[in-house]
Order: sequence, then C-alpha cells, then structure tokens
Amino acid sequence: MLEHFFNPSSVAVVGASQSPGKIGYDILNNILQYGYAGAVYPINPNAQEILGRRAYPDLTSVPADIDLAIIALPAPAVLNVVEQCGKKKVDSVVIIAAGFKEIGPEGARLEEALATRARKLGIRMIGPNCLGLIDTASSLNASFAAGMPPNGHIGFFSQSGALCVAILDWALGENIGFSKFVSLGNKTDISETEIMLSMGKDENTRVILGYLESVEDGPRFMKAARQISKNKPIIIVKSGTTTAGAKAASSHTGALAGSNHAYDAAFKQSGIIHAESMHSLFGYAMAFANQPLPKGPRLAIITNSGGPGILAADACDKSSLHLSPIRKETADRLREFLPPAASVYNPVDIIGDASHERYEKTLEVILKDDSIRGVVILLTPTAAVDPEAVAQRIVNLAKDADKPILTSFMGEKKVRSARKIFQDHAIPSYDYPEDAISALDAMLSYRKWQEGPERQYRHFEADRLKVRKIFASVIKQHRHDLIESEAREILNAYGFRLPESHMARTTKEAVIIASEIGYPVVMKIASPDVLHKSDMGGVRVGLGNAAMVEDAFFEITSSIQLRQPSARILGVMVQEMIREGKEVILGITRDIQFGPMIMFGLGGIYVEVLKDVAFRIAPLSEEEADAMIRDIRAFPLLRGVRGEAPVDIKGIQDALLRLSQLAIDFPEIVEGDINPLLVCPEGQATVAVDARITIQE
Amino acid sequence: MLEHFFNPSSVAVVGASQSPGKIGYDILNNILQYGYAGAVYPINPNAQEILGRRAYPDLTSVPADIDLAIIALPAPAVLNVVEQCGKKKVDSVVIIAAGFKEIGPEGARLEEALATRARKLGIRMIGPNCLGLIDTASSLNASFAAGMPPNGHIGFFSQSGALCVAILDWALGENIGFSKFVSLGNKTDISETEIMLSMGKDENTRVILGYLESVEDGPRFMKAARQISKNKPIIIVKSGTTTAGAKAASSHTGALAGSNHAYDAAFKQSGIIHAESMHSLFGYAMAFANQPLPKGPRLAIITNSGGPGILAADACDKSSLHLSPIRKETADRLREFLPPAASVYNPVDIIGDASHERYEKTLEVILKDDSIRGVVILLTPTAAVDPEAVAQRIVNLAKDADKPILTSFMGEKKVRSARKIFQDHAIPSYDYPEDAISALDAMLSYRKWQEGPERQYRHFEADRLKVRKIFASVIKQHRHDLIESEAREILNAYGFRLPESHMARTTKEAVIIASEIGYPVVMKIASPDVLHKSDMGGVRVGLGNAAMVEDAFFEITSSIQLRQPSARILGVMVQEMIREGKEVILGITRDIQFGPMIMFGLGGIYVEVLKDVAFRIAPLSEEEADAMIRDIRAFPLLRGVRGEAPVDIKGIQDALLRLSQLAIDFPEIVEGDINPLLVCPEGQATVAVDARITIQE
Repeated sequence: MLEHFFNPSSVAVVGASQSPGKIGYDILNNILQYGYAGAVYPINPNAQEILGRRAYPDLTSVPADIDLAIIALPAPAVLNVVEQCGKKKVDSVVIIAAGFKEIGPEGARLEEALATRARKLGIRMIGPNCLGLIDTASSLNASFAAGMPPNGHIGFFSQSGALCVAILDWALGENIGFSKFVSLGNKTDISETEIMLSMGKDENTRVILGYLESVEDGPRFMKAARQISKNKPIIIVKSGTTTAGAKAASSHTGALAGSNHAYDAAFKQSGIIHAESMHSLFGYAMAFANQPLPKGPRLAIITNSGGPGILAADACDKSSLHLSPIRKETADRLREFLPPAASVYNPVDIIGDASHERYEKTLEVILKDDSIRGVVILLTPTAAVDPEAVAQRIVNLAKDADKPILTSFMGEKKVRSARKIFQDHAIPSYDYPEDAISALDAMLSYRKWQEGPERQYRHFEADRLKVRKIFASVIKQHRHDLIESEAREILNAYGFRLPESHMARTTKEAVIIASEIGYPVVMKIASPDVLHKSDMGGVRVGLGNAAMVEDAFFEITSSIQLRQPSARILGVMVQEMIREGKEVILGITRDIQFGPMIMFGLGGIYVEVLKDVAFRIAPLSEEEADAMIRDIRAFPLLRGVRGEAPVDIKGIQDALLRLSQLAIDFPEIVEGDINPLLVCPEGQATVAVDARITIQE
Repeated sequence: MLEHFFNPSSVAVVGASQSPGKIGYDILNNILQYGYAGAVYPINPNAQEILGRRAYPDLTSVPADIDLAIIALPAPAVLNVVEQCGKKKVDSVVIIAAGFKEIGPEGARLEEALATRARKLGIRMIGPNCLGLIDTASSLNASFAAGMPPNGHIGFFSQSGALCVAILDWALGENIGFSKFVSLGNKTDISETEIMLSMGKDENTRVILGYLESVEDGPRFMKAARQISKNKPIIIVKSGTTTAGAKAASSHTGALAGSNHAYDAAFKQSGIIHAESMHSLFGYAMAFANQPLPKGPRLAIITNSGGPGILAADACDKSSLHLSPIRKETADRLREFLPPAASVYNPVDIIGDASHERYEKTLEVILKDDSIRGVVILLTPTAAVDPEAVAQRIVNLAKDADKPILTSFMGEKKVRSARKIFQDHAIPSYDYPEDAISALDAMLSYRKWQEGPERQYRHFEADRLKVRKIFASVIKQHRHDLIESEAREILNAYGFRLPESHMARTTKEAVIIASEIGYPVVMKIASPDVLHKSDMGGVRVGLGNAAMVEDAFFEITSSIQLRQPSARILGVMVQEMIREGKEVILGITRDIQFGPMIMFGLGGIYVEVLKDVAFRIAPLSEEEADAMIRDIRAFPLLRGVRGEAPVDIKGIQDALLRLSQLAIDFPEIVEGDINPLLVCPEGQATVAVDARITIQE
C-alpha cells in the first residue's frame, strides 16, 4: 500500500535547488545522502546538474518512469506541476508548500482545485503544508528535516510538522529507531487512516504512533484502527478540540458530549492506546516496540532499595497490574544466594550492597517462574553496584526471555551509560519507576483488547418505512422537533416497549381513555412547541379518578396557554402510569467527526448534576452496550445495593442496541433521548416512558 | 536550628577507616575533599593518622570541642559511642549503621535503648540506618554518597537512603543545585518535622523537597508545615500505605478513610504541594526553586509551531491556569514585527521560520504586558532556529522579569545545549510542554495557599463534664458502643439541634409520648447491642396515630427478640418526625498518624455506593469546613438544582465544626457519625436525627 510513496524505484524533486538552506536543496540532499538506491531526478529549468545529478527542466523531459514526485515549489506553482504529473503518469506526489487552506478562503480554493485535479488524474497526494516523509527500510529521506533516524520498528505520523521535527531530533539524540516518518500536513488526500493501513501492513513497523489534531473520516478511521490494532498497537496523542460549533448547537445532553467524549469513545472502541501526553506516547512506544506483551497482570519488581520499590508498588496498585505473590519454590531459590536482609517477596529487594551478579541471578530465577508475567527492574546507583554491568547482564538475559522486561535506573551521572546500553539493546528504560509501570499497564490493556471477543452486532426487525413517513411529515410541517406521539411511534417501530397512551382532545375523551387504561394515569401536554413539558406545568402524574383527570386536563392546557401562549396545543396525552423500576436515560447526539454517539446514564441528578455518563460511537456491539452500562460510577445502583434485586441489565443493553440501530438507520436524527427508560428487576419489562427526537433535513 | 548538624565548627568521624570503599573511609574522605573548613577528627583506636589527619583512639581523647559526631560503626558498637558523646558533651550525632528496628524485635530493642540514652544525655540524633547529610553552604559532606551536589536552593530530605543516592546522582548529572541533603533513616530522634523547620529557617533553601513513607507525629508535622509553607514551598512525594491495620478495625465509614485520605487531607490543610510522582517532584522543584510565583492564572504561550502550542493549551485547560486574552496594544506591538501568518493571539505562534531575534522581541513585548502573569516558551528545532541563541536571549530577558518563565524545547540532539544553558541559568526546562504547564499550575495553587486567609477557628460552649460522665458510665458497663440516647445527650451537650425524643418502656408510655410530641412520629429500638437498627427491623417511621404506635412497639421489640435474641432491650425511642430537608452524613474516624479525621458526604448511596466523600483532619478551621462541603461531587444538590432553594450550608459548616471540636476534646472517640443530619433551606434548623459513637478506653 502506498508503495510508490515508501519504496519508489525513482523519485523526482520538483523545485530542486542548488542553494543550501533552500527546501528544494535540503530535500534533494536528504534523498541523496542517506543511501536511497533508486533513480533521482532533480527538476529545475535553470540548472544542468544539482548535487552531481543531471537536472531536467520539467517532469516530462525525464527519459524514464517516475514513481514519486516531491513538489518543493510555492503554492501557486503546484497545480501546474500536478498537471505535468498527470501527463508523465506519476501517481504519487508529496506537496511541501504551505499557503493552502490554513491561510484562509483563498488558499482553501487553491487546495480544492488541486484536490479535484489530482483525483481526476488518479494521483495520490501527501500534504500540502508538510515536511515530507522518511522510510528507513528503503533509506528514503524525502523530507527537509535535519537528519535521518536510525532503522527501527516505530512508525510515526503527525498532523504537526513541528512535532515531526522535534521527534526526529529526539530519535537522533536518543538513538531510537523508526521504520517510517510521515508528516500529514493538510491531509487533502491521504489521511491518517491510509497511513495507518499502510503501516499496519508494513513488516518493519511493530508499533504505530500518531499525533492528531483531528480525524478526517471518523467511521473509516475507526474501522481501519479496529482491524490494525488486533495485530499491531496504535498509540495516539490527540490534541485540541474542534467541535465547539457542534456543541453550542445542542442542548443539555449534547453539552456533555463534546468531541473529547467522541474521541475517547472512538479510541476505546477501536483498540487505540490513548496517550495522555507526549511523555506517555514515547514511554509507551519504547515498551511496545521492543518487548513482548505481558500474558497477564502478575508482575515482579526487582530493586536494590526500598523507596523506589514502594513507588513502583504504589503505581502498580493504581493500575490493572498486580504484584505477583512469589511462589514458594521461587522464594526458596532466591534465598539460596540472597543475603538474609533481602526480601524474597514482591518487590524483591536485593538490598543496597547488590552487585551485578546478584541482579543477574535474581532475574534468572524470576524469569523461570511461569506465574510471573512481566518484570520491572529498578536500580539506584549505590557504591556497591556497577550500573553498566547490571545493564549488560539484563540485556543478555532479556534475549531469550518470553516476558516483558522494563527498567528504571534512577539518577543521571552514574546511570547514563547503563541507559545507553538499554537503548542500544531495545530494553525500555525510564527515568522513574512509575513510568515503567504505566507503560506495562498500557501493554496489558492492549493485550486484553487483542484477546477480546469478536464484535457481536444484533439486528432488530424494525419498521423503517413508518419512521421515514413520520420524518417526511415533520419536515413537511417545517418542524425539527417531534411531538411525543411521533417519538412514541418511532420507538414502537424499533421494538421498544411503551406505556399505553392515547391522545385526548377534550376533557371527556380524557376520562374515557383513562378509564380504559386503568387508574392511576399520567397526563402530558401534546404540543410540537413545548419541549420541557414539566417546567411549563404540562405534566401531571398519579391521577387516580375521573375528577382528577378532568381537573388535570384543564390545568395542563391553561398552564401552557398562560406560560407559552404561542404554543400549538394538539391535545393532552393520557398515559398508563408505571410506578416500579429505576429511571435511566439513553441519548443520541451527533459528533461532527464520528457521527451518531449513544449516551447512557441514570435518571435525574446523575446525568445533569453529577455528569455520570458513558458515551460510545454507534453502531454499538453487544459488548460495548454492556460496557457502557458498567462504565458509569452509579452502576452499583443498577446491580442492586443493600440487598435490592438487580435490575434487568440485558433490558438496558437491548434498548441501547435498538437506539444505536435507529441512529445508524436515520442520519437525519441529530439529537434524541429516552428519558426515562424505566428498568425493573429481571423478568419484568423495560419501558420507554418518554422520548424526544430532533431531526434535520 | 540543628546548627551543629549543618554548620558545625568541628566534626568527628567515629569509625574512620584507612581502607577506601569502607563507609568510615568514604565519609571522612567526603568531609575532607569538598572543602569543609572546620576541624575534622578521625576516631580509630588502631590508627595514628587517616587521610593526612591525626586520628584519636576515642572521642574523649580529642583535645578540643566536638560539635558533630558521625558514627560509622556497626549497630552493636553504637550505644557505647553515644555514652562517650555524653562525656565529651557532643550534642549532635549522625548514626549510619543499619541493624536496628528495620531488622525486627531485637534491633528495635537496641534502637529503643539508644533513644532513651541519647534523650537522657541531651544528644540529638539523625538516623540510624541512613546515608548521612550534606550542607553545601558549609561545604560539609558528612555522608558516604558518591559526589557533592552543586550549591543551590533546594533542600531535600528522604526517608529512603537509596532515593538520596539516586537524586544526588541526578543532581550531579544535570548540574542541579542543592542547599541541604538529609537522609532521615529510621527517624529515631530527628524526624521530617525538625528537618523541615530547620530548612524553613535556612536562608539558602528556597524550596523544600521530601520523600516520605510515613510521618512520625501527624499534628506536629502539620503545624510545622503550615507555618513554613506560608513562606517557602514544601513539595512531598508520599509513598506506600501503613494504616492497613487501622482500616481493618473500622466499619464502613472507616473503610473509606484509609490513610491515603488522611495524607491527602493533611497535605491540603497544611499547604504542602503533593507531588504524585518523582517525575512531578523534580519538575515542580525546578520551577519553584528558580522562578517567581505567578501573580494570577493568566498565562501566555510563545511557540514556533502549532502542535506543541495546542498540547500546552490542552494542558492549560485541564489546570487552573488559563490562556490570557492578548490585549489589543500588545497584539498591535507584536504585529509590528511578526509575519502575517503568525498568530498574535494565545498561543502566540511566531511560526516555523522564527529566529532567536523573533523569539526575543516577542518575549520582550509579552513580558511588558501586565495582564500576563506567566510565560511558557516552546520551541521545536526547525531549520531556521538556533536553539542555543534562543536560550541565551531568554536567559538575558528573564534576569529582570517579574513573572515566571518556563520552557520546553522539544527534541534532543539539537536542543541539548540549549537545555544546558537553561540549567546553568536557573530557567526551568521540560522535555514536554505539558510538564511546564503542570509545574506552573502547582505554583499558582501554592500562591493561592500563601495568600489565603488566616485560619479561623470557632469555639463553641460545650458541656464537657456531661460527656465525660456518659463515657465513664459506658466504660464502667464494659461497652464501647453508645446507645442512641447517650449519643443524643452528647450531641446535645455540643449544641446540636435534635428531634424531640423520649424513651418508652411500655406500649402505653409510647402512646403518651407520641401524643405529647405530636403525630407522626418515628420509633426506634433502644439497645446497646443493636448497631444497625434498620436492618434488624428496629425502626418504624411515619406513625400517624396511637394504634400505629402500639403496633410498632410490638413489632420492633419482637423483631429484635427474633433476630438478635441476645440483645439487651432498654425500650423504644419515640421521636419527632422531621419530614423536610436533605440528608447528609458527618463522621469521625481516627487515623493512626494524624488523629481525628472528619468525614462529610450526602446521605444514602452517595457515601456508600458513589464514595463521594470529603475528609479533613480535625481541628477544622471555618474555611476547611466550608471547603470540604464544596469538595464533594454532589455539592450542586446542596446549592440547589432546577430552581430548588439552596440548603443552609452554614448550618452544615456549624455542625462540622462542632463535631470537630468534640473529636478533639475527646480522643477516646474512635469512630462516630451523625447519619443523617437533616439540612433545610436557609433559615430553618439543621437537625441531627441519628448518631452513633464508639469509644475506647
């Protein structure tokens, strides 16, 4: 995939320059100096030869095929070069220049023209407004970055060119190997998704790192990530928020569902490891690129001092890892050579006078214990220890180890050379014990994702035609908000259980309906204009007889007439009153990047005040629906506290899956909620008591 | 303070050795080689001279006064040397040897003997089981650590000798200056509190760092920290938990109040900056030691690239800092020299072709804007920029700046020398932007603490004699749990409002009392043996007439007889039923290191299921009582949601302060709660409905 970008047989540099310091010079020089074996064609009408290579006035005059063109000309000149690429059948181009959509409407028009033309000509583009790309396997440095990272197994893509620069400099300074380096720029054509897919297939890439400010096509991104992450870890830092506009447009449920919720959900649902900071990104990368995943949560810590051991144990306690109880036979073997003051329990404290031999013997014994799934080795540079020698022994033993080994040698001056040894031998090394634990924890979570079950979707029979008709009628009436009876019909069409309910246009009708339903009943205003019915005095509950129903009809209609005189009143809904069960809220919002998002929380203050809600991107798998129910802090209330019977969790899951299907089937739904969904102990029905749906044409 | 430890006129090394590699050699050698100007006396009966200094067979044979003795002999020999110190009037000793309480009961006995003897002789001790101490101002390195840190303004103490070693090595490698370095060891005599007090008074120390695994005397530690932290920041990493035993002993409220809650509360209440990791500890230290505190939350970010700017802005958004809107006149001045593509808003993006001159001019303008309280400068090593030159310009401008300047130059190879310049000129420099923001955020929180109001205590009139009598009677009956009427009397003695309540011994009495109180009433079993009354069927509420009271009396007593036949039944309490108000819970638990701790939460599931509770160490100040009410997530429910009237927050505050006073007055209270305290809208009384108190002799 994207073969001509990463492993081209020939590269042309359009705008190649003879002046050092110019981008057109730097790129050509980078391609030539790092050993790229293919043909290289500088394109410059004013030169015969650049950097010892024959130059050509334009692409078409090159007497051979060109796989990749790097266009290092200013923005206004780019479109013309793309036309030439078309003629020359160059199918892959990298556009370096800035001056496109990032500078405003004029640049955006230029970029759009470029995109349209390239699409027509069948040309794939990286950029514009980027640094270029690097592939260490083909020794191709088609960027104007200063330097070439060592060969390695980390693929990195970034929406920020500056971060590419910084990270490349870090790779050079710390001797960290990379497989590929891609500066995405404006992502006019090729986006993070295609780069991820390409790195997913690349044998040299073991771990994919990314820095993103936005995602181009949420669902496609998730689909690709889900597929890749089953085999290869993807670690991403996401910065900034971009749905401020979408947020402002939506009411309270929407206000909670800013795009950060969407990114969190999307990453979680597609197995992406979400790094909270650049610090974590690289900490994780070191571990994932170089060590096997832990097969379970049980970890051993080896240390020559108590303090760092306690720090690591604390960090462990806050993670999903836990300190493995050391087996008796392992403890006995350790006791054979450790001094009496040492601790053979976990952390294994081989004390301050430990030498490299003691470290080695201890690690040997620990590695042989099958119950231990990962090892973190800590060292403080005491007088007794030679950190370099310890590092060397660890490197030797790590070669044949089948469990991850991470290290933290604390200090600086005396441990510097040991850290260097670790770098050179792919042993992750951290300044502080907490960072080692955190990386191992991320590895364990990722392994759980990898081993997780296949996504199970459930499909429900639904009367889509009916829903389509209702939406058409609403739009015809120039409305966006459905009235309750419409919302009820839609839920009904998707198989939700609803309380019995009928519209009454007169007091008399109301009494007849109530007696048919059976007392007590609930009454609610039916109006397309009254959204918050309770606040307007439009709801009465617990009406036990005909007289109360008559009074309520009058009170409800006059309250609405008084408080919202312009509201159209269609009648009053008379509804079966359901008295048992716990109230939960289900919602749909629409994220501009990921599409429909499903929300879940407990009714009342839990959502509004405590913000105790869970989000997932639709469509939900069965596992995701179940997981989001368990995600909220108040979940124990559903499971039952103080001897209460648990509610029907499967009933909530079913409702979430139906709502997810509705949201996917009808993209015109921009917002909606079922509030409340009444959920009872297992065996009793789950009932959607009230619903609100807003659509857009 | 502790003058003879840190600035002695003369030092004796008892156990000085002639063999390099021995601790007795290393210490003497460290004292001599780093320029300590006082007299130095090696003590060794088998040597005439060590390292060019005349040796003495014992302390008493030294022909001059000795301010400080470093005892570098094995544990069994130490007591005898302490005796000699007594004779020689040496009042300050450092004991290096391990082999005391950390090895078990035998060592503990030796340590206790040592402590008793030293106390008797008026000798102060650091250690045993420690590395020694360093004071850079007096050039005294009385430790066996390898190396001497540069002079500086950070004082460091550590309960782990190994961390001292690691941190010293880090200081040497990174050229970080320290004022004092103290390895606390077993803290037999001198603890963290005295070291903090000493560093608090030390002019060379601007910031105090500590690593602690435990605190010796919680209240004294808090008092000292509170006093010092008003002038000087104290930053502490606390590792491990030690109250597992205390936790197991307490019931559900206690189970929430593990010692981590106590440390969190204690640090918060005494202005200690709680570093979550070693990484944060040093990140914060760099900022606090070298930069002025920000005068407010408004921050400017200067960057030469978008990505890192967004990362910093994100971090800012999660902190208490915020990006200052750039004033028009400042923006205009920036526009004068910045290219059009630059952003003069915040983050101020001076774009990828920025030179050191552009950085300099931008910083100059930003520093002059009074509305900006702190500056974070980011750099990625683009081709256009010379990081070293930028660093130099920043260093020059920072000299006269009155606001904090923090930097993050991302990368490694090309920014290494710039980072070195920052280190040498006391400009905090971080690998990643997020760490700079986090350090500045800690500085802002600390400034808020410094500027916070003086602690205000309120004293309530209370009938302590009555409480004492009740406790005496309970103990006499070999009980620990008070019955409800006793608990009520105690709350009454401390001025709590209680519902009217009387004990009925017969059905008839119950009806008479109920009619006097007025219906409806509540009835509860009165028994010293029934703790969870509701669960045992011992409570009935909403009893509206005589017949209901009669039935309830029978049902309650028979339920208890059935379910807990051994329970002594004293009668049934008949109580006024309070129907209005929100239920909150107040609690007392006792932490083994910090003493009485006050708990607050909302009634019902909020404490038990959602663990939404706040803790503070007693005695509470008025501000602390108020702050803990606002700390819980459910606080908006008290302030009123959906147009509800707010409850009487002052009433809760008053109750917390009264409970705090009770907890302090009577250390025999090991646990108690008021559950529920009913709190009504302002103007109405706050009522303690039910209480439970457990005491210990």
